[in-house]
Amino acid sequence: MKRNIYFIASLLIYSFSLCWAQNENPDIKEDFKPSSLNQPGQEYPKVNSQGYARFRIAAPEAKSVKVTLGGREGTMLTKSDDGAWTGTTLEPLDEGFHYYHLIVDGGIFNDPGTLNFYGSVRWESGIEVPAFDQDFYALKDVPHGRVQQVLFPSKSTNTIRRAFVYTPPDYDKDQTKRYPVLYLQHGWGEDETAWGNQGHANLIMDNLIAEGKAKPFIIVMTYGMTNEIRFGGLKDFDIKPFQMVLIEELIPYIDNNFRTIPDQPHRAMAGLSMGSMETKMITLANVDMFSYIGLFSGASISLDDVSKTSGFKEKVKMVFVSYGSKEYEWIAKRGREFTGGDPSENVESLKKAGINSILYVSPGTAHEFLTWRRSLREFAMLLF
Amino acid sequence: MKRNIYFIASLLIYSFSLCWAQNENPDIKEDFKPSSLNQPGQEYPKVNSQGYARFRIAAPEAKSVKVTLGGREGTMLTKSDDGAWTGTTLEPLDEGFHYYHLIVDGGIFNDPGTLNFYGSVRWESGIEVPAFDQDFYALKDVPHGRVQQVLFPSKSTNTIRRAFVYTPPDYDKDQTKRYPVLYLQHGWGEDETAWGNQGHANLIMDNLIAEGKAKPFIIVMTYGMTNEIRFGGLKDFDIKPFQMVLIEELIPYIDNNFRTIPDQPHRAMAGLSMGSMETKMITLANVDMFSYIGLFSGASISLDDVSKTSGFKEKVKMVFVSYGSKEYEWIAKRGREFTGGDPSENVESLKKAGINSILYVSPGTAHEFLTWRRSLREFAMLLF
Repeated sequence: MKRNIYFIASLLIYSFSLCWAQNENPDIKEDFKPSSLNQPGQEYPKVNSQGYARFRIAAPEAKSVKVTLGGREGTMLTKSDDGAWTGTTLEPLDEGFHYYHLIVDGGIFNDPGTLNFYGSVRWESGIEVPAFDQDFYALKDVPHGRVQQVLFPSKSTNTIRRAFVYTPPDYDKDQTKRYPVLYLQHGWGEDETAWGNQGHANLIMDNLIAEGKAKPFIIVMTYGMTNEIRFGGLKDFDIKPFQMVLIEELIPYIDNNFRTIPDQPHRAMAGLSMGSMETKMITLANVDMFSYIGLFSGASISLDDVSKTSGFKEKVKMVFVSYGSKEYEWIAKRGREFTGGDPSENVESLKKAGINSILYVSPGTAHEFLTWRRSLREFAMLLF
Repeated sequence: MKRNIYFIASLLIYSFSLCWAQNENPDIKEDFKPSSLNQPGQEYPKVNSQGYARFRIAAPEAKSVKVTLGGREGTMLTKSDDGAWTGTTLEPLDEGFHYYHLIVDGGIFNDPGTLNFYGSVRWESGIEVPAFDQDFYALKDVPHGRVQQVLFPSKSTNTIRRAFVYTPPDYDKDQTKRYPVLYLQHGWGEDETAWGNQGHANLIMDNLIAEGKAKPFIIVMTYGMTNEIRFGGLKDFDIKPFQMVLIEELIPYIDNNFRTIPDQPHRAMAGLSMGSMETKMITLANVDMFSYIGLFSGASISLDDVSKTSGFKEKVKMVFVSYGSKEYEWIAKRGREFTGGDPSENVESLKKAGINSILYVSPGTAHEFLTWRRSLREFAMLLF
């Protein structure tokens, strides 16, 4: 378990550095537009059609202002005549969503131009580079489901806990219809807001359902780190407290309060990065509870895992494994010892054993949210 | 209308300055605790039992760091030996919620220690000074309703708009039961997130319902500035675009998608500050739609308004007017010309005319959210 944790941490660091080393200083096109995640009325940060990001921070008396995006060293801004600090990344960013923050005179602050997103165990600034396939998570004029905040009691942790629940567009139309459920987990340093805010899980589902490409189902998102390490590292991670909350408290709450189909064939679990490790551990320990398993950017399941798990072959309908292309190469080279084998070999060996096993690789993305938005879309189309 | 706008703006400025002029430099008790709105694991900002706030900002190379709380001049922080900037407000803050931000070397940034709340047309830092009656909006072990994000189509603005909908704890238990609805508006510079985030509207209702002090009803919160001045001032404010969205689009959407009692006797509208002006204008123009009117920290309704409004006396069941005590005194002295008369005179004159009219003054608060949390509580107990 500890090795898996270090692996995830290494992945994160690797991803932050990988995506900057490709572009040989091309001419930068002056077609910059405000990032779609900016606060109302804010012009900066901006991105251009090549993926370069440009920043502008007012701090007339500052000595130095740096942005943590733009390679391992980040992007140093320079002071303009009007007292604002401006600068453009030296290389284009990958398509999709990126967390970042500012370092102003040695202090960590968020960019006042943009919205905040919970990641890295803090509310970080976010910027969005338009992706070639951004239409699949766009807000469109289609029927929209709802995202509900529920507060559920948890005896095991002696807390009242929060979950967000996506219900599909037709949920309130026919009061007799019942739905399958996907339990969907965030990554390390994130929380139950991640899949809704930066993940656009609701819009992905609304669009898929409108196109007839996915069956309507409920998605439940809650906080996956219950063992008091919200603020710390992963090294003492223990799945049991969260497993208790999920299996004994949240699932019964959801089944009691939403029109679910409360059985194994109609229940799935998926997660990203740390959430994929949680998904692997919890589903292997509870094959009577989950029939679909989604592992995004982290764990995979080997034939050895299957053989150690009584009932797996009969009960599990699908194992879905995904990565961003830029992290996947690295895993194939260096990471296989940490994930219990090479993911593609694992997927193939499960296939040969007659288990429905799928590998998806997101083009041109690293260990970031566009990988996971795409993973959710691909996974959702195969569910139930 | 313009005068009302300037009045609200004056109120805001006045409120920011009023609450600091009382305490004659008492001994400061060293019982500081992290504010309840801090980010996970963050120790600062802190507040003590007297209402003093203490800040700590890491920015070792900065020349100056100031906090906008602590009187008209704010609180200048001083650099400690470890490079962090620290300081305590010179006077205690009022109980309740306060927006603020930092000024670091002349630039506006949020405090990285605390959560952000949308106010002043930006996501601001927030701090909470425990109130003597904080129990009424506390997260307690009672049945909890849900807060749902809905995305509804708006032809008049050619947008897909967001609303948050509170449904009471028993909403999903009996699928035949229908509920009254309160439409609840934020103030200038805020948005549809305000009543849920800083207002704790859901917790206030959960607690009231658990105590049997309010009937269960639905609350709908949406953005009240539709005329493209989200980023600007109020001087060109026109109620018509928002009235169109509310009356022609949102209310039909809610009545079609939630189990409402879709008639005038079971529909209320309330709002704070600018939202109270909107509420006054919209309810007076639509007495066939709303039977309860809540005006928090802004407008009041005069006998003249009533006599100009056909059907008001027969149809409107209650006019509720509220203020914080610290803004109310000022209004009694200087503001009456702007609100169409002294609020208490207005309330009394309506009472004498046989109209159920109520004035509530929140003790020890100014033009801030504790006034409005209390106003919602008082108003909710009288509804339906």
